[in-house]
Formats: sequence, C-alpha cells, structure tokens
Amino acid sequence: MEETEPKIAAAGAVDEGRLWGRLMALGQIGATPKGGVNRQALSKEDAEARRRMVAWAQDLGLAASGDDAGNLFLRLEGTDPAAAPVLTGSHLDSQPTGGKFDGAYGVLAGLEALEAIQAAGLRPQRSIEVVAWTNEEGSRFQPGAMGSAVFAGQMNLAEQLAVTDSDGITAGEALRDFLAATPDLSRRPIGFPLAAYVEAHIEQGPRLEATGRPIGVVGGIQGLRWFAVEVLGEAAHAGTTPVSMRKDALMAAAAMVTALNEAMADAADTVRFTVGRFEVSPGSPNTVPARVFFTIDFRHPDAAVIERLTSRIEPICADHAGGCAVKVTRTSDVRPTRFDPAVIDTVRRSADALDLPAMEMISGAGHDAMHLAEVCPAGMIFVPCEGGVSHNEAENARPRDLADGARVLAATLIDLAGADLAG
Amino acid sequence: MEETEPKIAAAGAVDEGRLWGRLMALGQIGATPKGGVNRQALSKEDAEARRRMVAWAQDLGLAASGDDAGNLFLRLEGTDPAAAPVLTGSHLDSQPTGGKFDGAYGVLAGLEALEAIQAAGLRPQRSIEVVAWTNEEGSRFQPGAMGSAVFAGQMNLAEQLAVTDSDGITAGEALRDFLAATPDLSRRPIGFPLAAYVEAHIEQGPRLEATGRPIGVVGGIQGLRWFAVEVLGEAAHAGTTPVSMRKDALMAAAAMVTALNEAMADAADTVRFTVGRFEVSPGSPNTVPARVFFTIDFRHPDAAVIERLTSRIEPICADHAGGCAVKVTRTSDVRPTRFDPAVIDTVRRSADALDLPAMEMISGAGHDAMHLAEVCPAGMIFVPCEGGVSHNEAENARPRDLADGARVLAATLIDLAGADLAG
Repeated sequence: MEETEPKIAAAGAVDEGRLWGRLMALGQIGATPKGGVNRQALSKEDAEARRRMVAWAQDLGLAASGDDAGNLFLRLEGTDPAAAPVLTGSHLDSQPTGGKFDGAYGVLAGLEALEAIQAAGLRPQRSIEVVAWTNEEGSRFQPGAMGSAVFAGQMNLAEQLAVTDSDGITAGEALRDFLAATPDLSRRPIGFPLAAYVEAHIEQGPRLEATGRPIGVVGGIQGLRWFAVEVLGEAAHAGTTPVSMRKDALMAAAAMVTALNEAMADAADTVRFTVGRFEVSPGSPNTVPARVFFTIDFRHPDAAVIERLTSRIEPICADHAGGCAVKVTRTSDVRPTRFDPAVIDTVRRSADALDLPAMEMISGAGHDAMHLAEVCPAGMIFVPCEGGVSHNEAENARPRDLADGARVLAATLIDLAGADLAG
Repeated sequence: MEETEPKIAAAGAVDEGRLWGRLMALGQIGATPKGGVNRQALSKEDAEARRRMVAWAQDLGLAASGDDAGNLFLRLEGTDPAAAPVLTGSHLDSQPTGGKFDGAYGVLAGLEALEAIQAAGLRPQRSIEVVAWTNEEGSRFQPGAMGSAVFAGQMNLAEQLAVTDSDGITAGEALRDFLAATPDLSRRPIGFPLAAYVEAHIEQGPRLEATGRPIGVVGGIQGLRWFAVEVLGEAAHAGTTPVSMRKDALMAAAAMVTALNEAMADAADTVRFTVGRFEVSPGSPNTVPARVFFTIDFRHPDAAVIERLTSRIEPICADHAGGCAVKVTRTSDVRPTRFDPAVIDTVRRSADALDLPAMEMISGAGHDAMHLAEVCPAGMIFVPCEGGVSHNEAENARPRDLADGARVLAATLIDLAGADLAG
C-alpha cells in the first residue's frame, strides 16, 4: 500500500452531484429573484442556513456544537479524540446581493470531504471539524470576519456585539435571536487548540479561469484597511443659495473620491481601492446636501505600500473639503497574511496526486483563514468561478471544478489528520 | 378720505403676535427634534395641517372648499361675489428636514391679511381667497408645485397621481387618504378665473437680511430644469477585481458630478447647480457599486443660459462614464417667470405707503406663483429669513419682518380687490 492511498481513497469518494445539490438547496435560503442570495449575517435566513447544516451533520452522525460568537462546528471524531483537531470551513452569511458560492462552498466542501472520508471507510487519527464562521461579510455588521477573529483572539467579542446595523439593531441582539434558532446545540468555549486549518473557497477573481486550472494553492492574503469618512456641510436651498455661500457635502465628497481614486492608481493594477457605501442626506433633489458618509476599502499584498498610500487618505480628503468638516476614521486594519509552508505544500501535493493542474496565488479577498493563520498552521484552496464575478447575484461556478476542489480538500484533510483504513 | 386709506387700515389691523402664534402652532405639526418640520406632501401631517387651516377659517367665518388636486381655498366673500376673486397663499407641505416658515408663512400671512381686513371693518369688492397648494416641495412626489400646476393647466392631474414615492405609494393613493381627512369640505372644479394672484414667502436667500430691508418686491423667478441620472456598472468583489476590469458606477458618478460642477461654475455666481439625491447600490463596503442614481437641479434667470449649459450635461456624463452605461432623463423644465408689471407696481406702492424699505429682486427658488403667472396677473412679496437659510430645520425669521410682509400683503390684496369701509 503506497503512501498516497488514503488521500486518493478520500478524494475518490467525493460526489459531484451531492455537493452541487447541497449548494443549490442552501442557495434557496435567502434566494433573490436574480438567482443570487441575500443571507446577511445573523438574519433569519442565516439562522435557517445554520439549522440546515446541523440537520445534514446529524444525518452523517457528526457531532454539532456552537460557541458564544455564533460559530458552528460539525465534528468527525478521530481515533485520537484528545489530539487537536484539523479544522476546515468558511461562512454561510452573504452580501445583500451576493452569490450562492461565496462562503457556502467552503462549508459544504468541508461537509462533502467528511462524507467522502466516511464513505471511503477511513477513520482519521485527529478529529476533523467543519466550521461555519459568524459574519464573514461585514456588510450588515462591520467589520467582517467577526466569528473567526473572536475565535483567534484577534477581536473582543463584547465590543463586536455592541456594533449596530443600519436599523439600529446591535449584533448582540441579532446573535441572541440567531442562537435561539438552534436551542439544543451543545455550547463550547470560544477558541481551542487546532492542528491546522484549511479553507476552500471560490477564487472571486479571474485568474484560474483564464489559465484553465481547477486548483489555486493559496500562498497568502493581501492586507486590508477600511476607513469611514464623514463629510459635514450645511443644508441649504438649491435655488437661492449662491455656490460661493454653500457648504455642499456632496460636492466635497465627490471631489474627495475622484482625487483619491487618481492618487491610488498604480501601473501594475495591484492596488484595490473601493468606495462601496456612499450615503447622502437629507437626500432631497432641491436641497444642498448637509452630510455624506462613505467607506473606503483598500488592499495590497505589501504592508509598506498599504502604509504609504493610506497615509495619503486624510490629507487628500482635507484638501477637497471646501468649507465642509471631514473626519476620517480607520475602522479595520488587517496585515497581509502568509500561509504556513507545510500546509501550502500539503495542498500542492494533494493536487499533484490527483493530477489536477494547480497554480500558486495570493488571495485578493480577505477570508476567515487570515485570523486562523495567527493561531495555527493554515492554508486555502481556490477553485475557479465564472468570469471571476463574486459579491454579485450572477456569481457562478462549474460543478466539476467545485468537486475537484472538494477532492483536493478531502485529500489534504486526511493528510493533515493522518488516517488508517478502518475495518 | 385719501386713496391709500383702505390699504393703511387693513395693514394697521395686522397682529404680529397672532400671526407668530399660528406659525408656531402649525410648526408643531410634523415638528422635528431640531426645531424644524417634516410634513411631506400628502402625509398624515400634511392632512392635519389642512384640518387646522379649515378650523381657523371657520372661526373667521370664511368659506372653505377644495378641489380634486388637494388644493384648499378659504374665501372672504366680496361685495361683488360674481367677480373673479383675488387669490393669495402658498403651501403647507415641507421638505423632509424643512423649516417652519417655507410655505406655511404664505398661507398664514394670507389668513392674517383676511382677518386684518375684517378687523379693519373693510369689505372687499372682489372676493379674496387664501389657497394652500398641494405638494409644492416635490421631495416625496416629483416634480413639485403639483397643485398649482394642475390648477393652471400646466400639468395633467392623472399623470401626476401615477407618480410613486420611495415606498412605492402613488400620489393618487396618498391624495385619497389626504382628502378623506376633511370629508365635509365642499368640492370645487379644478381651475377658475382669477383677477390676480399674490404670494408672500420668506426669501430663502440672504439678500434682504444683508441689505436690512424687510420687503422684497419680486420681479420674477429664475428658470429651472431637473434631471435624473442613472449610472449602471457591475457589482464586483472589492478585493479581487483589478481596477482595469471594473465597471464602478460610483467612481463614474463621482467623476461626472465633479466635472459637471466645474463646467457649471460662473464668475458671477448666478448659476445654481445642485446634486441633492445620490443613491448607491448595493451599498456594501467591500462591493464595487453596480448602480448610482442622482438628481440634478439647475437654475438660472436667463432661458438662453439654461439651454446652453444644460445641453452640456449629457455629453459630460458620457465622457466620464468609464465602462458604465449612463442615462440622463429631463424630469422637469420650468421657464423663467416674469411677474405682471401692474401687480409688481401694486406691491411696491403698498410697501411705500407703509414706509417699509423694499428692494426689487428675482426669486432663486421656484414657487407656485410661477404657474399662476401663466393664467392671471401675478406677483410675490418676500420677507427676510435668518442667514438666508431654508430647506433646513434651522430656518428662522423675525416676527416683526413676518408681520411687515403680512401688512404689505393685506394692503396689496385690498388694493387689487377694491374696498369700501363697511358701514
């Protein structure tokens, strides 16, 4: 019996149709008319997705548990239950007009890997758990990746629960209702030792599709900073107030955004600069706007570039404020992540053993894996998505590619956990 | 008995405290915590203000009636009831964060003038009516000045009633509830012959205050065009989508607004260019915006300048669309108004007779009077407001200035209607 056999056996038991069927079933929860998903963090839809995961886990005889941050764990017990487990997973929450694969794929690929490992007659030495992290997207409650950050000790839970959504509901209130939807789930302390963490995810970018490779071996994640910018002017009548006497918050904010966009442009097209929220009040056609609030999402793989370019944000805003007051607040700061060389190597060798063409890449998006990388050896597996489109109701991926990712995941998990053929 | 005596008598009976008291009472309906008013067109608050006006009219023995467009009329019968009446008034609806004086002052100054005429023992030859026009502001249902435009045959009522607010409620549905709040009001056909129309209003600009004069004799109203601009890009992940592959609706719209603002700037500071609504979707910090909708409010006293500058809007938007689609729709087009020389002269002579310093001016804001000017001799009287601030909860005016405006209005109305001392 050769060294690769348990990996090959686990990967061989992955069922493309079963994985696709679960993805489509989960995509019905919070489904939008345009084929996407609106399943925002800690919503009723998010709670229903959680209940569905627990039901599937029970069908497979996995032990379900949760922690006080709303993270959900589904455990396949190893032959050495006292050993630190290998963890895989992602998140079930979505953007307001998100797709069916972002996050959900990582959780369901994990479940598929566990079912394949069972079906192949394997028992891992270390336990393997599938996790669904709370509020990865950060669109309802900011910042995102809350559940994994709290698990890894990177954020304080109480502070995160005080954050409010746009309706004034706190994350704490939403979490209480969310946890009440699965009252029988056994409760577990936040954070526990892990042997390793591997997360499968759609690429959310165009490179795998463009090069025709089904597997991305992810070496790291670019760093990210978020800012909130508040511009305060003065409401005034649009017909009577001379331009020279206005404090027009919208004109100031539009000039800031245009100037920032120019300042952040780089020839290599590596900088990611995005203004995603931009709210104007009072919002009447014939009233000069008194206030604008906007967000900045800035990303780059190089910490020095992040420092240099983001230090320009406040001065550029001040230069274009006109008569308005402007306040820039940093709301998130995530260093670039380098994944563990041994985990990266395990993923690469799994793809090679399965004859699946792979490429090394840096993730453009943030993922829960960045927080896990602070507390254990971590890595990620990417699969292609159609046109690189994500955070969009049109997000799509091919069943074959998704199954190939689950195969590499199953092989990687069994390699990291160790396994014998049961029997 | 000299020619000016009935004017002086009517003006002399204006009661500053009574007028101020009614303004403050009306300002309680839809009052906001910051001292302003949110009494949007055809809302419950707007209906309550209407009921209050009817109650005050009944106390004075005035006949109240309404038409199918929601306009309210309060009539002081003249000695020649068959003669076309003289009309005065304004509107009771407000901006979402509006003030206590915009509109309400013109209606209550009209009521005060009628009470003063009665108190002075005068009976006008022509009947004098006070009107409260429906939906002047146009912030809930666009465009504004709906009631006066329909009255003057400038808009089609059925078309206006099909317009929806941001909750999807049609103006027709809102009007039905609004009319049901005063079920006993006698109904009157839309539009009837008028001898003249005079509207009192706060200036909503800084010039009267700056020059220390209590009365503005309004020669006309600058013209206005409204546009709706829709920018369609493509939602995409903020971390993974290279800038060169984005269709970012926000960056395109911000560049359009900045470029338009520069193109519209004039050395004389006469052009009024405002972007008051600007809505971004999906509105998530880490998603490239797929759609922006914004409004343009453009005003100038010269029709040729309006034509020349607004013809540049569409090309400038197209030039800055990047990869996005952009659609510019003209939603309103109001020619500059010149008021009737005889009415202007009557207002000027009334101020002179009362020894109130006056200045001629062009209105920066649109008013219902612009539609009335199409069907009868029309004019307006302005009074100062604090700092020129309007469409703002901080809107304020001095009781003395407001009473002076009502004095000039009472004198002007009695002059236009003709009067004898009752005996």
